[in-house]
Amino acid sequence: MLWVDGARVADAGAPDRGLEFGDGLFETIAVVAGRARLVERHLGRLASGAARLALGLPERGLLRAELAAAAECQASGLLKLIVTRGSGGGGYASPAGPARRLLYAAPPRERPASHAAEGITVRLCETRLAEQPLLAGLKHLNRLEQVLARAEWQDPAIAEGLMLDMHGRLVCGTMSNLFVVLKGELVTPSLSRAGVAGVMRAALMDAFAAAGTGVIERDLGPDELAAASEVFVSNALIGAWPVRRLAELTWPAGPWARRAQAFVAEW
Amino acid sequence: MLWVDGARVADAGAPDRGLEFGDGLFETIAVVAGRARLVERHLGRLASGAARLALGLPERGLLRAELAAAAECQASGLLKLIVTRGSGGGGYASPAGPARRLLYAAPPRERPASHAAEGITVRLCETRLAEQPLLAGLKHLNRLEQVLARAEWQDPAIAEGLMLDMHGRLVCGTMSNLFVVLKGELVTPSLSRAGVAGVMRAALMDAFAAAGTGVIERDLGPDELAAASEVFVSNALIGAWPVRRLAELTWPAGPWARRAQAFVAEW
Repeated sequence: MLWVDGARVADAGAPDRGLEFGDGLFETIAVVAGRARLVERHLGRLASGAARLALGLPERGLLRAELAAAAECQASGLLKLIVTRGSGGGGYASPAGPARRLLYAAPPRERPASHAAEGITVRLCETRLAEQPLLAGLKHLNRLEQVLARAEWQDPAIAEGLMLDMHGRLVCGTMSNLFVVLKGELVTPSLSRAGVAGVMRAALMDAFAAAGTGVIERDLGPDELAAASEVFVSNALIGAWPVRRLAELTWPAGPWARRAQAFVAEW
Repeated sequence: MLWVDGARVADAGAPDRGLEFGDGLFETIAVVAGRARLVERHLGRLASGAARLALGLPERGLLRAELAAAAECQASGLLKLIVTRGSGGGGYASPAGPARRLLYAAPPRERPASHAAEGITVRLCETRLAEQPLLAGLKHLNRLEQVLARAEWQDPAIAEGLMLDMHGRLVCGTMSNLFVVLKGELVTPSLSRAGVAGVMRAALMDAFAAAGTGVIERDLGPDELAAASEVFVSNALIGAWPVRRLAELTWPAGPWARRAQAFVAEW
């Protein structure tokens, strides 16, 4: 039996483990002109996450076709694909069955055009990321740390918050990955202990490498930001946004962010 | 628009943040003879978790009445109350509205009677618990670590797995809290960095204290298990189970576990 907000709901199955435990993964995919952007990369990350969590995904061709059909319905905006371990299993023990998939199509999230054009102000979050190598990099459904970090500010002038791990290393933004230009080299934090390995991050790293400038992935301290000539953040929906200010630190909307945006425009 | 397993679902609202992010809390409550056991403790823990996550709970009287009504329907078994931040907010940013609540009534989980009567065999899990003081102790919906830990074994002869944190300290079982008797004193691991502060754990700690034997809450190393005269685990559904074996270590189903079970029988 199930009651939602006190009202009896008929014919309710067992609760989904996505809701019960966050036992699943998701992809948030930009739809541009009726097409899902970077869809093969999204499907690839989903597959590697599913392998790590031992989730039984449907065939990739089926997912691809469903995403394409949903993107055509939406024209522009986003697709959110949530894959869970379904229902049952008895407490934390996992059921043997296939994953369940939920696919939402939604209109674009409203963002000021100036974020991409002129850049953003960010803050440093007090909420730290716990270090869990078994889950690091995955876009799984356990995102309370991001919710807590995003609840730290309401000021609309601040577009993103950067997050540190428990050892004080920079990891990512609440919803984005971080790139920092140091001594003419492009650096992005290692995600071996915490953080989400963004599809846009991977696409940009590959694009920069293909253009002859490999991105360095390493531990990065917040003190290094003072020496940066440029900072930008990326995710699948926003592409890349220059970071112009963090507290007393300022940077230009520089050539590296513009190159990143040019790559995104091609996709 | 929403598709579930490829089928279009009409009239779908925005996805619930409990599913999207695990943005919520839950309580699993034993129903014995048509009554919800330790219901005031469950409601108290829910309220303190909601305060920490800034979730807007309904009135306690309303929740109490709904639990009582659902318990009468079920007679024996369990109630699972899931409270989420509802829908919306835009990405990780939280909506202002009230929490959404889902209340499931289910028959008892089948457990061998020998678990309580004779005790259980446990294993030490390889999955470690990340350390996150902001979430430690809460029964929140981000439970992938427990899912991974429980997936480490299928052997039905093993009833529970004990978990260490990233520094190798004993924290809890995948679904239970841990008590260890050392030099005639009852010790339970500190939950300031990881783990769930079980309602049954709190009830037992209070009962032992009221009987004149306070429980010591401190960091506990796995090496200390070799010196233990007795070990038991607890949760709201199982009450207390003696732990008889972990690899080469064995313990009796001793007087401390029997006292714990006697307390539970009174509730």
